[in-house]
Amino acid sequence: MPVPPVEIRRAVRLALQEDLAVGDATTDALFPSAVPAVGTIIAQQDCVLAGLAAACYAFRAVDPTLSVTALAEDGASAVRESRILEIHGDGRSMLKAERVALNFLQHLSGVATLTARFCEAVAGYRTIILDTRKTTPGLRVLEKWAVRLGGGRNHRYSLGDGILIKDNHLALMKGHGAGVVEACRAARRQGPHGLRIIVEVESVDGVEAALEAKADVILLDNMDPAAVRRSVELVKGRALVEVSGGITLDRAREMAAAGADFISIGALTHSAPAVAFSLEMQPS
Amino acid sequence: MPVPPVEIRRAVRLALQEDLAVGDATTDALFPSAVPAVGTIIAQQDCVLAGLAAACYAFRAVDPTLSVTALAEDGASAVRESRILEIHGDGRSMLKAERVALNFLQHLSGVATLTARFCEAVAGYRTIILDTRKTTPGLRVLEKWAVRLGGGRNHRYSLGDGILIKDNHLALMKGHGAGVVEACRAARRQGPHGLRIIVEVESVDGVEAALEAKADVILLDNMDPAAVRRSVELVKGRALVEVSGGITLDRAREMAAAGADFISIGALTHSAPAVAFSLEMQPS
Amino acid sequence: MPVPPVEIRRAVRLALQEDLAVGDATTDALFPSAVPAVGTIIAQQDCVLAGLAAACYAFRAVDPTLSVTALAEDGASAVRESRILEIHGDGRSMLKAERVALNFLQHLSGVATLTARFCEAVAGYRTIILDTRKTTPGLRVLEKWAVRLGGGRNHRYSLGDGILIKDNHLALMKGHGAGVVEACRAARRQGPHGLRIIVEVESVDGVEAALEAKADVILLDNMDPAAVRRSVELVKGRALVEVSGGITLDRAREMAAAGADFISIGALTHSAPAVAFSLEMQPS
Amino acid sequence: MPVPPVEIRRAVRLALQEDLAVGDATTDALFPSAVPAVGTIIAQQDCVLAGLAAACYAFRAVDPTLSVTALAEDGASAVRESRILEIHGDGRSMLKAERVALNFLQHLSGVATLTARFCEAVAGYRTIILDTRKTTPGLRVLEKWAVRLGGGRNHRYSLGDGILIKDNHLALMKGHGAGVVEACRAARRQGPHGLRIIVEVESVDGVEAALEAKADVILLDNMDPAAVRRSVELVKGRALVEVSGGITLDRAREMAAAGADFISIGALTHSAPAVAFSLEMQPS
Amino acid sequence: MPVPPVEIRRAVRLALQEDLAVGDATTDALFPSAVPAVGTIIAQQDCVLAGLAAACYAFRAVDPTLSVTALAEDGASAVRESRILEIHGDGRSMLKAERVALNFLQHLSGVATLTARFCEAVAGYRTIILDTRKTTPGLRVLEKWAVRLGGGRNHRYSLGDGILIKDNHLALMKGHGAGVVEACRAARRQGPHGLRIIVEVESVDGVEAALEAKADVILLDNMDPAAVRRSVELVKGRALVEVSGGITLDRAREMAAAGADFISIGALTHSAPAVAFSLEMQPS
Amino acid sequence: MPVPPVEIRRAVRLALQEDLAVGDATTDALFPSAVPAVGTIIAQQDCVLAGLAAACYAFRAVDPTLSVTALAEDGASAVRESRILEIHGDGRSMLKAERVALNFLQHLSGVATLTARFCEAVAGYRTIILDTRKTTPGLRVLEKWAVRLGGGRNHRYSLGDGILIKDNHLALMKGHGAGVVEACRAARRQGPHGLRIIVEVESVDGVEAALEAKADVILLDNMDPAAVRRSVELVKGRALVEVSGGITLDRAREMAAAGADFISIGALTHSAPAVAFSLEMQPS
Repeated sequence: MPVPPVEIRRAVRLALQEDLAVGDATTDALFPSAVPAVGTIIAQQDCVLAGLAAACYAFRAVDPTLSVTALAEDGASAVRESRILEIHGDGRSMLKAERVALNFLQHLSGVATLTARFCEAVAGYRTIILDTRKTTPGLRVLEKWAVRLGGGRNHRYSLGDGILIKDNHLALMKGHGAGVVEACRAARRQGPHGLRIIVEVESVDGVEAALEAKADVILLDNMDPAAVRRSVELVKGRALVEVSGGITLDRAREMAAAGADFISIGALTHSAPAVAFSLEMQPS
Repeated sequence: MPVPPVEIRRAVRLALQEDLAVGDATTDALFPSAVPAVGTIIAQQDCVLAGLAAACYAFRAVDPTLSVTALAEDGASAVRESRILEIHGDGRSMLKAERVALNFLQHLSGVATLTARFCEAVAGYRTIILDTRKTTPGLRVLEKWAVRLGGGRNHRYSLGDGILIKDNHLALMKGHGAGVVEACRAARRQGPHGLRIIVEVESVDGVEAALEAKADVILLDNMDPAAVRRSVELVKGRALVEVSGGITLDRAREMAAAGADFISIGALTHSAPAVAFSLEMQPS
Repeated sequence: MPVPPVEIRRAVRLALQEDLAVGDATTDALFPSAVPAVGTIIAQQDCVLAGLAAACYAFRAVDPTLSVTALAEDGASAVRESRILEIHGDGRSMLKAERVALNFLQHLSGVATLTARFCEAVAGYRTIILDTRKTTPGLRVLEKWAVRLGGGRNHRYSLGDGILIKDNHLALMKGHGAGVVEACRAARRQGPHGLRIIVEVESVDGVEAALEAKADVILLDNMDPAAVRRSVELVKGRALVEVSGGITLDRAREMAAAGADFISIGALTHSAPAVAFSLEMQPS
Repeated sequence: MPVPPVEIRRAVRLALQEDLAVGDATTDALFPSAVPAVGTIIAQQDCVLAGLAAACYAFRAVDPTLSVTALAEDGASAVRESRILEIHGDGRSMLKAERVALNFLQHLSGVATLTARFCEAVAGYRTIILDTRKTTPGLRVLEKWAVRLGGGRNHRYSLGDGILIKDNHLALMKGHGAGVVEACRAARRQGPHGLRIIVEVESVDGVEAALEAKADVILLDNMDPAAVRRSVELVKGRALVEVSGGITLDRAREMAAAGADFISIGALTHSAPAVAFSLEMQPS
Repeated sequence: MPVPPVEIRRAVRLALQEDLAVGDATTDALFPSAVPAVGTIIAQQDCVLAGLAAACYAFRAVDPTLSVTALAEDGASAVRESRILEIHGDGRSMLKAERVALNFLQHLSGVATLTARFCEAVAGYRTIILDTRKTTPGLRVLEKWAVRLGGGRNHRYSLGDGILIKDNHLALMKGHGAGVVEACRAARRQGPHGLRIIVEVESVDGVEAALEAKADVILLDNMDPAAVRRSVELVKGRALVEVSGGITLDRAREMAAAGADFISIGALTHSAPAVAFSLEMQPS
Repeated sequence: MPVPPVEIRRAVRLALQEDLAVGDATTDALFPSAVPAVGTIIAQQDCVLAGLAAACYAFRAVDPTLSVTALAEDGASAVRESRILEIHGDGRSMLKAERVALNFLQHLSGVATLTARFCEAVAGYRTIILDTRKTTPGLRVLEKWAVRLGGGRNHRYSLGDGILIKDNHLALMKGHGAGVVEACRAARRQGPHGLRIIVEVESVDGVEAALEAKADVILLDNMDPAAVRRSVELVKGRALVEVSGGITLDRAREMAAAGADFISIGALTHSAPAVAFSLEMQPS
């Protein structure tokens, strides 16, 4: 499950800039010379790991002479107390990189772990868990990587790489006396080649209109499982069906049972609680 | 409660780069010319607002001709369904800025709202709620602003602007045959002028050592309320007392009752659930 | 036909950095104080205009007090000798922005003009002219905007926003004992939601395999019009048909006649000759 | 013929940011683990090579574990079908770097190849082929490197490193009642030490004025070969003679025969057609 | 005395961008191929060294194949004519990095050397020499590193990591009918945890007010040694005493004798004369 | 005397990033709401002003609502106690911009003032005072602007915009059995069009060789006035004569008397003491 190294480097450097731009007042004051040490990162709770590549890069960016060994892989499950990463070298450099490394691990593993829980909730159905563009500013690429590591798949990365016609688009179209049919036609004529057309609807009536407009995917927003089921029956495979809005773990399973092809969930990236990790160090 | 505009601009530009670097495939395909519209951002739940300044800047950065009016203030409480922000101008520009604006609002208001809940939990005590460096990479300045808006105060911004001697520092010192007294002495001699010296301890014994070392602040990590109370009695005002580790709302109140001057809580920034906001648009 | 202003600003600033980072040795030496002037940009040949927005921004970025008026619109056709842009203000600032403004205009109008010629070549057919990722490094967003202004449409913006399975992918799959069917299945299972699946083939046999693999689009690479026609007949509307490779104006028309839905042409962006523009100035 | 590595790195990183910021949707979906492969870049037409250093860096920036070997040198001539670059390692990384690497090669080799053709056109004369500031925004340093690789020489890099008094400067001077003599005097008095003074003229009369003003170089703009010859005779070695404007290969040779010391040609950088290269990959 | 490598890299890259963005016209013209050489940097005057790490990085950034060996250490004293740094490899790369390397060395060693002279001036007293925020724009982190290398200590890095209530703050408070007591109370209540509170005063009366307000540090600005002595007696250890304003070497010693804990000196960073270094090269 | 606004903005933003990235702990704690105020910048010593444009931009960048009025001009002489700049608006914003604004003013005015003293020292002679590339990293463009404001002129901006053949170049050439004649020939053949050729020599013998090599400018390094005079007589106007090395004010006048056309002085930029300025604020 590869991640663009370019983006990891950019994000880690920015985080180091936040934390280390003027040095480490404590470590610099306490240790005038190198302190050979070994450090171990340990998971404090069960989780799906994400961000190890970023954590490794953080240590190496602070000090290329550190020897950094991942003891697990991004995307793997880890149990409480398991050792994740081991570092050998100057302990001062570990202290300087520690917080940045852990901040990536704790947040991205949080996203992956929450995604995995939703995937388990729909296990047995063909339904796919998707993220959204409700991401943390500046971390979109990494959060979407974490979603994949947790077993989910990615929705649009940006406004430029997906066609999604929403209620606000249609409200403005209506001001021009046009509707979903005209919107889909414009999208097909003017939009980038290679993108499916997704139409958001809020009722079973909307589904009919979207079918008429030949949407590739119909996104049912804030509809209950019964309405989703009726919509799926109405669609009869002529389009893919995606649902969103107020999705809890229980509700996700109901939506899967109702026949949704996709469930997109903003909480995967905007409300995943952090996973706790710690760094333990000893002189060596 | 001012925020550095430099940092808001940097963060919003980066987020726009993520979302809008290649344009808005949907809006650009649907609307060949300007669509006069009015948009309103509405809170979907009770919250403490944070990030309005960023949301306003997002709309203006996308289109300087938009007229953007905040209907509330950063730091104010908002109730469900209240109108927060109103925008007049080209609806296409609103659609392009919407997600970036909401992503800042939902995350920062989440941080402020959780902080406010912890502040309420310790109400009636002199105890102060603090954040930590366990922030989301790239958003430290804005998250710490949100903490202040929620009624909390800020701990260190970076490794460079605070002296905090932790267990890992002491583990490495021990390798040199030195302890907390030597560590504090080195910090006072070599550290930047103007910084207090904080020592992290994990037991009442550690408190005695920290007092002997003349720490300005003693940070009790993962100690229970009874141990905190004993520590406070031992300290007798010779240092400030900060507690951290596993702090829930209930536990926070117990710590306040036990006499802690400060409670520092990583969850304020790393695990605050997002607050929901929506943008509603109409042609005008 | 909107362009992301964020990207225009980035590209123009970079170009100003190249040209003006240390000032204008000539103008600074000749004119110690402001010189009121009027400047006019004039097209030196018939063309489709693209880049006016960038040219305007270049003048304003150098000197916000300049009054800059576009006399034509991006996307419009202009005849030789027509006046495109008029600037009033300090002539020194015009001299400093001139080359950067013209460099954007000449290149982007070159792209738009060549695109328009290909669109004319296929006029009367439903065939759509597409660009490729064979763009000039650093200018992808702007070149793709110019393609749209010339009447073309956009293929992928990046490796992240389109699924295109090419010969090299299949060569590597074959090393695993897998083929186009397995490749399409993996793309559908693992790829981002919302993207069509495009398969590149080099023969009519390849078309059959791609159909079996349920490709959304079949890209016929370097096939002659007769083979394209046979492929279109074979496909029978079950997929869209795109052609590429060695496309001249004459060949484009033949491909359209052969039934191609799309023709993608690298030359639109990598080999479009510049359109000549000049700036004429007078004191005012 | 060295190129500043700083600039190659900057430009390649920007191009990778364009193409790979959110990953490679196709490759990432198809290949979950590394695929050992060998890739070869092959010239599809005769050319002068430029940009190999950038292509090599692109592969290494995407994946430092790739083994990248140049089979030819920047500045060398290559014939159709010749092998230029060989890469060993993970085939997924090659697929990710391919387009960026080729985009630099095709454009810069295009510039070098066109430059070489102009140099051949003036072979046997002492005339030197120069570029201009009519470069592609963001690529000035690399394009000027390609011109040198093709056998040309560089004119100004920016407004700051050359004094060139043009018609627009003189039009504004005239508004002050001053002419070319006053302009040259100001340039000598106020301009940076170490720069020659170049004056652009459009007629033989202008040559006389420029001589009187003691220009170091006289740039004859849009004059025909006969007028150039008369100008050269008039100058009698008291200044260097540069010509520009509407220079084709045939016209270049006539200008050389007419005695021009330099011919500056915008088309070298703004209208050079790309050279075709391909990457062929096999599992290994 | 560690320096953040992140900051060295940023500053050196910016300096290389200034000096080498378009290549080295002289070296590139003179040497078409590599010239094996050895280069030695030599101190031209007695000094305290600072910036060797930056100089080494400059050579390596220009050419990673250079072998760069420091013959001395940052913070060490060097005598006139001593050899500081030796480089083996392509002489062309040394010529390209030379000026950037020397510019860091000469400026930072200038700061360290001046700091060391002030430290010597107060030798025998417990007084500590501090820098200020009167630094050269863009070099604050490196200049403050040089101050530490010279034996000084650091005052605030930025407005964000220190509380210093100055005359202008108090002038604005007075407009609200408030004074130093209210200012200190607000700072304690609202300022970041972990920062001491410093109050600037200009008279012995001011000292009394600052004591009443419970300042941690009292900064005596532009007071003469006699007034400093009276202030120290008044303070009686209830706060630390810092002095600033018009501090020469002689005056520094008088202030130390008067009992100042700290002397902060803007000249350390804004007026330190450069130390001369040269690079001598030979073919090898 | 124009300065590129692009560069002022870049440098000021970087400085604000250093000083204000995390806000102003003092001002933010003391003043919860706006404080109308007037601020005045006052020169504390006689000087030539440079950097007012940067200071103005600093205030406006922090707070676009501030009203900022320059009371003097860059390049003007100012006497002690004169008022330079007046600002009206929120006093909190002034406090935040103050140090950055003053840091530019104090340093750049220092450079301009020292340059002016050297220009006075050679008054009555035609000799021109030049800067060098011995600038402060990151500030080259602004320091060279300050040199011009002080009455000096600029030498090379970078390695790319001047040809200067120095002793180290010749030492490497000698390894190839070549000398100054071959070096100048290579520079003329391969160097950028539009640059003079400057040769550095250290003796009268060197002058003869440089003349033979047809250098445009001969730079006499570390030669005494008598040797300079002999060199000038030898040159007899066949080249311009520049001197450098150990230039004090007295020595500068002797060099001018000896007939030097140019004196280049590193100290203008690397060792100019700062000029003192203060900001005085009152509530309004």
